[in-house]
Amino acid sequence: MIGGDAAGMSAASQARRLKGPDELEIVAFERGHFTSYSACGIPYWVGGEVSERDELIARTPEEHRSRGIDLRLRTEVVEIDVDGARVRARDVDSGAESWTSYDKLVIATGARPIRPDMPGVDAPGVHGVQTLDDGQELLDTLTRARGRRAVVVGAGYIGVEMAEALINRGYEVTVVNRGAEPMSTLDPDMGRLVHQAMEGMGITMVNDAEVTKILTGDDGQVRAVATDDAEYPADVVVLGIGVRPETTLAKAAGLPLGEYGGLLTDLAMRVRGHENIWAGGDCVEVLDLVAGRERHVALGTHANKHGQVIGTNAGGGYATFPGVVGTAVSKVCDLEIARTGLREKDARRAGLRFETVTIESTSRAGYYPGASPMTVKMLAERRTGRLLGVQIVGREGAGKRVDIAAVALTAGMTVEQMTALDLGYAPPFSPVWDPVLVAARKAAAAVRNKTP
Amino acid sequence: MIGGDAAGMSAASQARRLKGPDELEIVAFERGHFTSYSACGIPYWVGGEVSERDELIARTPEEHRSRGIDLRLRTEVVEIDVDGARVRARDVDSGAESWTSYDKLVIATGARPIRPDMPGVDAPGVHGVQTLDDGQELLDTLTRARGRRAVVVGAGYIGVEMAEALINRGYEVTVVNRGAEPMSTLDPDMGRLVHQAMEGMGITMVNDAEVTKILTGDDGQVRAVATDDAEYPADVVVLGIGVRPETTLAKAAGLPLGEYGGLLTDLAMRVRGHENIWAGGDCVEVLDLVAGRERHVALGTHANKHGQVIGTNAGGGYATFPGVVGTAVSKVCDLEIARTGLREKDARRAGLRFETVTIESTSRAGYYPGASPMTVKMLAERRTGRLLGVQIVGREGAGKRVDIAAVALTAGMTVEQMTALDLGYAPPFSPVWDPVLVAARKAAAAVRNKTP
Repeated sequence: MIGGDAAGMSAASQARRLKGPDELEIVAFERGHFTSYSACGIPYWVGGEVSERDELIARTPEEHRSRGIDLRLRTEVVEIDVDGARVRARDVDSGAESWTSYDKLVIATGARPIRPDMPGVDAPGVHGVQTLDDGQELLDTLTRARGRRAVVVGAGYIGVEMAEALINRGYEVTVVNRGAEPMSTLDPDMGRLVHQAMEGMGITMVNDAEVTKILTGDDGQVRAVATDDAEYPADVVVLGIGVRPETTLAKAAGLPLGEYGGLLTDLAMRVRGHENIWAGGDCVEVLDLVAGRERHVALGTHANKHGQVIGTNAGGGYATFPGVVGTAVSKVCDLEIARTGLREKDARRAGLRFETVTIESTSRAGYYPGASPMTVKMLAERRTGRLLGVQIVGREGAGKRVDIAAVALTAGMTVEQMTALDLGYAPPFSPVWDPVLVAARKAAAAVRNKTP
Repeated sequence: MIGGDAAGMSAASQARRLKGPDELEIVAFERGHFTSYSACGIPYWVGGEVSERDELIARTPEEHRSRGIDLRLRTEVVEIDVDGARVRARDVDSGAESWTSYDKLVIATGARPIRPDMPGVDAPGVHGVQTLDDGQELLDTLTRARGRRAVVVGAGYIGVEMAEALINRGYEVTVVNRGAEPMSTLDPDMGRLVHQAMEGMGITMVNDAEVTKILTGDDGQVRAVATDDAEYPADVVVLGIGVRPETTLAKAAGLPLGEYGGLLTDLAMRVRGHENIWAGGDCVEVLDLVAGRERHVALGTHANKHGQVIGTNAGGGYATFPGVVGTAVSKVCDLEIARTGLREKDARRAGLRFETVTIESTSRAGYYPGASPMTVKMLAERRTGRLLGVQIVGREGAGKRVDIAAVALTAGMTVEQMTALDLGYAPPFSPVWDPVLVAARKAAAAVRNKTP
């Protein structure tokens, strides 16, 4: 196993369940200090909602070792020799190197944050939030920082989660975003709702702005973020621009990479063309079942599923990962943001013609206390009426409603079929027509009206 | 239209959308004072969470009339003359009767609460909660009642919702239940969790107890509820035993009724064998798509869908209601209770062989604040692995998770397919394996282990 986080260690654990130590020797290389931790939890640790770093660790190195996994921490694999079926590993501290041969190899090298190549990006006070070490360094900066001004670069899900974390730490937060609206995983009309809500929370949102450099003071510390047009004073800067598959090793070894730089696998998570090499987690591309092509989706939930599938197959069983429909949920303060399937531009890129509807409804029966507004956008294919995608922005109860659409997408349902879905109804949970059903009704009408 | 609540008035409104008053004359008979109200909201009005009765009214008589619907309140249809294509209606106040002929008839007579035939059941202080008038009478009793002891008879969803309402009004609440555990729409092992949680809220839960009579004091007011074994002092009694289809008229007219006394329709909601008569809402039986047979399910969400389908068809369009999978959610204080598909006994009655698993998980990532425990039970068919049913008991975030299973049931998914579902994941919304996925994994393993 190359990589000791979600995908790698899930694979190791599952393989160990199927094959005992006398049948299968498992060696796992991890260049960091930690295993099996929730990178997705880092914003909540930074924000103070999670008090201890160790709460984010699902399974410690000791626990893995007690299950008969030969876990080598602070040990970085620096070369994969596919023909020789061996990997070269380096002890991070001593620099000592050695070769280890394998019968089966699992690549779970994860992703690396996009770090723009610009002046000042390495200055003290500028932080990524990919690893637990990153999170600790950011927390140390927050403890020391003299002022309370934070700039978040990027307004994707990491960006908005970090904006919330910094608000919770009492910072004045400015989010500088290259796109027209935050959350580019949504269409801009839905991103606009996020924008408005973030401003309502006191977050300053700067769109259409490319950060060109990071300015430092006489002490070398960050003091501002600059775009072509303006400077945004900052005592701390968080980079939340996104991630790319970490496939340097795989590329050097000649393994097949896709359009986004991720490893390409078959449905059993085997690297294409390699019977005894698997790959999973943030370093692979996954099949988007709606668009019919590969995408890169870095999410812990996929990494865990990949690990499960790889471990089962490497342990002599059979399992597959059929692909994703592109579901994601995130939250900034009490705003919930969810999406699944295709945005308008994805649908166009896939060559689809479609109808789009947007509706407003509420999370509960309108008369029930706590009912909050919710906007649901739905895309359906013209003629067939097949559901293509759903985006939801609202408050409590908005986010996980996207699961209804995620299952419907997986099943290939039409929006007309969705209008008859027997969803849970009671006044504290939903209006009598669930917001997703309201959207489905409107989408079905739009499809019918366009069908001669 | 016979009946002016959800199904009838939805049908009227939808038909009016498709056909103007010059093309279609719509007459609606309603024996009560109100139209289009949320009977499901009554417990929250009684409990004080909804402050005004009128908040429960989705559309007033005046609104319906302004759309060109000839709405006749306090007018009860007392006979359907199918051969003569006419109905006889009686003015409730004056007793005057007249015949009205129809080209198309919609029967939406709703359900009537089961009112056990026992001594004292009509005493002052004993209340049903089916109509807005019932709710008002109960509220009047609560205002006048000298003591603060309430007994709820029945522990189905109306019973538990009324228990919460009475707790909210400051009552000491005892629920007397004929079954082994509350919520007989769940298997008893899941009902037991509801039982424990209700006791934790200070509700006294008496199971396996048949109420034999209601005792009154010298003033004629209710004073206790009696079973064979015991007496439970009561200043107010709420009957929440359930409902039966109100099909007295339909039966007298010779229309086809099913095993539960509900009207039988085709998929377009036409009464079987009658081209120009439709029926919907609580007075019909619906096809249970999982069990493959009719059931009676009194729920506003179905009634609204039926009305929509009937109005479309009666208005010259085409729509169908394919059936239900048996989804229901309810809540008692902060406990959320959900179910969809078949219980163990339903599956046995349907002739199915199945595997059952139960798992414990949490509503959010374990480390995220507010993560609460959740129990998920899942049934899957032996050999095929097809999902048969899901029951969930937990706190915030438990109830609407059942929608995942409701869509999967509709799509005929196997539990193995469900393990790969791309559900929304982020720490505030779900553990990295959603509880429904954890259950699906365990169910898939159970099916595999039983498949030679």
